[in-house]
Amino acid sequence: MDLGGTRLRAVRIDHEGHVLQHRSVATAATAGPEAVISQIVALVEQVMDGVSRADIEGIGVGSPGPLDPFKGVVLRAPNLHGWVDVPLRAMLQERTGLPVLLNNDGNVAALGEWHLGSGRGCRDFIYVGVGTGIGGGIIVSGRLLLGRKGMAGEVGHMKVQLDGPVCSCGKAGCWEALASGVALARFAQEALRAGRPSSLHDRAATQPVTAGDIFAAAAEGDALALDLLQQEGTYLGRGLVSLLHLFSPDRIALGGGVAQGMAWLEPHIRSVIETQAMPPFRDVPVEYAHLGDRVGVIGAATLLLTPMGDQ
Amino acid sequence: MDLGGTRLRAVRIDHEGHVLQHRSVATAATAGPEAVISQIVALVEQVMDGVSRADIEGIGVGSPGPLDPFKGVVLRAPNLHGWVDVPLRAMLQERTGLPVLLNNDGNVAALGEWHLGSGRGCRDFIYVGVGTGIGGGIIVSGRLLLGRKGMAGEVGHMKVQLDGPVCSCGKAGCWEALASGVALARFAQEALRAGRPSSLHDRAATQPVTAGDIFAAAAEGDALALDLLQQEGTYLGRGLVSLLHLFSPDRIALGGGVAQGMAWLEPHIRSVIETQAMPPFRDVPVEYAHLGDRVGVIGAATLLLTPMGDQ
Repeated sequence: MDLGGTRLRAVRIDHEGHVLQHRSVATAATAGPEAVISQIVALVEQVMDGVSRADIEGIGVGSPGPLDPFKGVVLRAPNLHGWVDVPLRAMLQERTGLPVLLNNDGNVAALGEWHLGSGRGCRDFIYVGVGTGIGGGIIVSGRLLLGRKGMAGEVGHMKVQLDGPVCSCGKAGCWEALASGVALARFAQEALRAGRPSSLHDRAATQPVTAGDIFAAAAEGDALALDLLQQEGTYLGRGLVSLLHLFSPDRIALGGGVAQGMAWLEPHIRSVIETQAMPPFRDVPVEYAHLGDRVGVIGAATLLLTPMGDQ
Repeated sequence: MDLGGTRLRAVRIDHEGHVLQHRSVATAATAGPEAVISQIVALVEQVMDGVSRADIEGIGVGSPGPLDPFKGVVLRAPNLHGWVDVPLRAMLQERTGLPVLLNNDGNVAALGEWHLGSGRGCRDFIYVGVGTGIGGGIIVSGRLLLGRKGMAGEVGHMKVQLDGPVCSCGKAGCWEALASGVALARFAQEALRAGRPSSLHDRAATQPVTAGDIFAAAAEGDALALDLLQQEGTYLGRGLVSLLHLFSPDRIALGGGVAQGMAWLEPHIRSVIETQAMPPFRDVPVEYAHLGDRVGVIGAATLLLTPMGDQ
């Protein structure tokens, strides 16, 4: 189950990651926790339709926002009215009679890619999702890195610059403030306002420029778009170098909307790693994640495949 | 055993960390690996004097430089002539008949503090040694973070600035290049050359200014020294914020020569954490490490106390 501010998505998967059933519905975001939990229970029943309960291992839930994976409590869900300290795991367990595991969207995406996608077979693996913000999850020695209160893995809030643009967290210098999709769009708007010639002006006249617009313009050889993607790849590379030095992973996967432009970004990411990482870290593969926009919901299901150790 | 470029130090400790015997000798740094290994074996015999071999669990060795803890091979030891791909573990095991474990100096210091010092009882713990460089080690969920090839934990080479001074690794923007003892001394020299009035001028006339000189000048109210330590604490704090967000540790300990000025640095470190870390990470203690300049050799011994898991 992927608990999103706009859509709720449910899949039923088997151990090999085959999606056997899927359903989704618009989230009743303004109706409060009880209403959303009823929606979740209904979706769960739908994707289990025709299957014996005894054959279901349980329900994994991925949720945005700060949450406590040990207690199964959503502390606060941005964009969902009234979601403060909601004991989602206990409520779902009671309503469904099934085991429930909960974790944040970055962590479940990392688990999904690790079990069933680009991180398969890795002992140490990092998933970085680059979309509106930068999130992710880290597998250390075959286990999800959780840390105190389950709050580890906030990769987007590494400090990569002494000052710079203010981040969604309210502070300057975060990786997310330089390299997220929102940051990329902001740099594009700034360049357009500064009068740089570009085919992006047409688009910007009617609606905000997106990462997808920039990829499209780059494909047509637009010089500004190519410059923006060089900068984006360079900023991404800087943060990835820190992750390489800290975690020495076997592989890093990039997902999320911005990573869809991996073909444009990869040469610049690779160039930063070749020049800024210490030599023994340079051959670590940095790849496009495999599960696409289903990474959240498939990843949530893989919580059930994950030995949570002493969680 | 602490294998240093200038001194070899050996201790025998018990499970509670009591130092039962200690010996040290100047390293025969120019004589090649065989000569140094003979020195190590002699020191080991000395600290085991009068003890039954059956009561010795083994030998832990901390070494600088790139090494492979899985294979027990020192890949390269800076300041030690001829140390390239030395299978130290196998050689010591053969010469002593005892189990030998090897890891780098940052990791063994972290293990020492975790087992016997400031990190005792923590599930997730980070040790940062701030001296000539910045090194450290990271305990994740009760296990030493090793990563691919055992190379994880290179905290000094997090990128904290987009440009800036060049690091010992040859690249710009590393934490070590801004916040190590060498960086602190360099900033001091730059300020003195720029003509800032300071009692440090007397010292600088005869020999290079050290972190210790700056602490002494600060204690006398020297304005430049106080400014330098504010900057040092601020730079340290920036890197610590990234470590908090990535690892969510229960505690961070600072050791090494620069950390001896913790009384001067702590208010500035604390201020950065209070203003730049996300709220749930702000209450994590950042403390002065307990084991002082014995952290390397005591930490090496604690390799024997450490479940190395699937290492």
